[in-house]
Amino acid sequence: MKKSFLREAFFIFYHIALFEFFVVYPKIKILAYLCHMQLKNDLLLRAAKGEPVERTPVWLMRQAGRILPEYRAVRDSVSGFIELAQTPDLAAEVTIQPVDILGVDAAIIFSDILVIPEAMGLPYEMVEKRGPYFPNTIQSERDLKKLKIANGSHDLKYVIDAILITKRALNGRVPLIGFAGAPWTIFAYMIEGSGSKTFSKARAMLYTHPKLSHQLLQMITESTINYLKAQINAGVNLVQIFDSWAGILPPNHYDEFSLRYISQICDAITEVPKTVFAKGAFFAREKMGALNCETIGLDWNMGIAESRNMIGPNKTLQGNLDPAALYGNANEVEAATIAMLDQFKGTRHIANLGHGVYPDIDPEMVKVFVNTVKNYR
Amino acid sequence: MKKSFLREAFFIFYHIALFEFFVVYPKIKILAYLCHMQLKNDLLLRAAKGEPVERTPVWLMRQAGRILPEYRAVRDSVSGFIELAQTPDLAAEVTIQPVDILGVDAAIIFSDILVIPEAMGLPYEMVEKRGPYFPNTIQSERDLKKLKIANGSHDLKYVIDAILITKRALNGRVPLIGFAGAPWTIFAYMIEGSGSKTFSKARAMLYTHPKLSHQLLQMITESTINYLKAQINAGVNLVQIFDSWAGILPPNHYDEFSLRYISQICDAITEVPKTVFAKGAFFAREKMGALNCETIGLDWNMGIAESRNMIGPNKTLQGNLDPAALYGNANEVEAATIAMLDQFKGTRHIANLGHGVYPDIDPEMVKVFVNTVKNYR
Repeated sequence: MKKSFLREAFFIFYHIALFEFFVVYPKIKILAYLCHMQLKNDLLLRAAKGEPVERTPVWLMRQAGRILPEYRAVRDSVSGFIELAQTPDLAAEVTIQPVDILGVDAAIIFSDILVIPEAMGLPYEMVEKRGPYFPNTIQSERDLKKLKIANGSHDLKYVIDAILITKRALNGRVPLIGFAGAPWTIFAYMIEGSGSKTFSKARAMLYTHPKLSHQLLQMITESTINYLKAQINAGVNLVQIFDSWAGILPPNHYDEFSLRYISQICDAITEVPKTVFAKGAFFAREKMGALNCETIGLDWNMGIAESRNMIGPNKTLQGNLDPAALYGNANEVEAATIAMLDQFKGTRHIANLGHGVYPDIDPEMVKVFVNTVKNYR
Repeated sequence: MKKSFLREAFFIFYHIALFEFFVVYPKIKILAYLCHMQLKNDLLLRAAKGEPVERTPVWLMRQAGRILPEYRAVRDSVSGFIELAQTPDLAAEVTIQPVDILGVDAAIIFSDILVIPEAMGLPYEMVEKRGPYFPNTIQSERDLKKLKIANGSHDLKYVIDAILITKRALNGRVPLIGFAGAPWTIFAYMIEGSGSKTFSKARAMLYTHPKLSHQLLQMITESTINYLKAQINAGVNLVQIFDSWAGILPPNHYDEFSLRYISQICDAITEVPKTVFAKGAFFAREKMGALNCETIGLDWNMGIAESRNMIGPNKTLQGNLDPAALYGNANEVEAATIAMLDQFKGTRHIANLGHGVYPDIDPEMVKVFVNTVKNYR
């Protein structure tokens, strides 16, 4: 009886092992292959990591936006920006458009940095020609209690779905960039309730309620880490952190209320290369050189040689043509692009503008910019 | 007959000489004394020139503004900002208010940088809560032909009258600061037609029409020199040039389209000390050290030690407390002010905020700022 039981057990184990080896394991391999599919163009990732590249990769901040008639057509088919961002099929479509039309070396998922406050419990509206508006803002400890730390894959499922669809449709042509706002920039909107020239309410909060400020910034940071991890699980190949309102803080506040949290995010994300773009934070360049990230974005005010000197040789720099340079004619755009490339030559570089492309730029001039980078040696 | 004629001529000449010496000359002396009246408090001027001072002088950008209920009362008595600026008695009244109420070491004439485009033939309106608006803008050579170079004392008589009234009423208590916008900033409004986050139309003009841009900038520069000279003739003791939109130009464009014209103004004004405040032009600090001016204003993003290092020891630095620091309580404002003063200690300094005081700041906190500077040794 005992012997027969052992034989039975061995027999079952043997068949399970056979099944695992010949059926399950190959499926896992295929799945893994599909997930981490070999990219046909991985210039962006190699440039970010400082590996050799045949030429400088190029993409544009806000490339999936109002410059393209094809984008405007899709957007006009829905009620507005927010519905577009929340409809995965359409978000995927406008994400891929610039890859097809402009020939850029990366797609960036079409979304908004303000999805995080919404996922934390603070919804926003997008007012035509005025920008984002939050009906409720955070002013006190009590307001803070109404918020939760966002769970990336559940609370922001529509972004994750858009990433899955985009990855499938891109079929490995170029890398897909994921992104989030930096905690300070998200905080600024959550306190201020809208865009602002000075964000004086948000800045006042740092002076009058530093403890509350740190609590909220920590909650945003954890939500952002969850969100970026979910994006990475869905297949993004690189993440960028946008600190759009970096430049309105004095240097000591920037260290305390922004860089500290960006640093937490950089340390938490280990799966893909990370880019940090802190617009206007010229005073923080030296400290950004010490962040645990691969790439630092430069705005068009930041001198290239000076920035390289401050940031050091161990980061890729991204940028930084003046977006207004694209108002020139083809010869002028080409000349300005080459002048920029010359300054980065021989160093780790990803070509881009120093800020988002302006909505009234002629797409043909964007193509001149992209092609000039691609033809540059 | 000939002898009698000579005697007659001598007699007339003798009496004219007597009259000149005893009647005209003393009157000129008295007038000159009244005009260049000894200031009771000339700390600002000595600090600007790098002469010894007993303590650091202090004033605030936008001190004659919305923070004071007394200002709002005067403003509510007229149709709006523009009428207030164009009514010399009232402009003088609100110019002096902060001297009486806040105890600052200087008055700054209540006016607007946009009086220059108006005097050149491009009028503007001030739209409540939206800012300035120009019904017409400059887009072409033809538009340029409609403009003239402003004559300071004639085309801007209301400002000159306000200065004369203010000087009389101040009675030498503190210096009076005159001002104008920097040519680039004025240009930006004349092209764009209103305030803007990016001034992308104005920046496009630099790329697409550099020659036209230089022509307009030169006309603005000459108008500004005329205007500042007229202000100085009317009695202002120091002039400040505001380049509010310096920070949106890339460094090479800033050199070519802004600093070049500021430099012309600095060279042309030799009568009084000059202050240049170029907000956001962190990249231009080294070159600003070479300007023919006495004082450079720093915004709150600019590190003090770093700026001193870049600008050199031969300029007075003005600034640069974060305007949002005044949202704190009295202890916090005092501490922040002292921390700022400590960093400037032992160097040429005029205390101020890093930008204009925000309109919702409690005037009591402004007094704490002012008194902290005055009590600091």
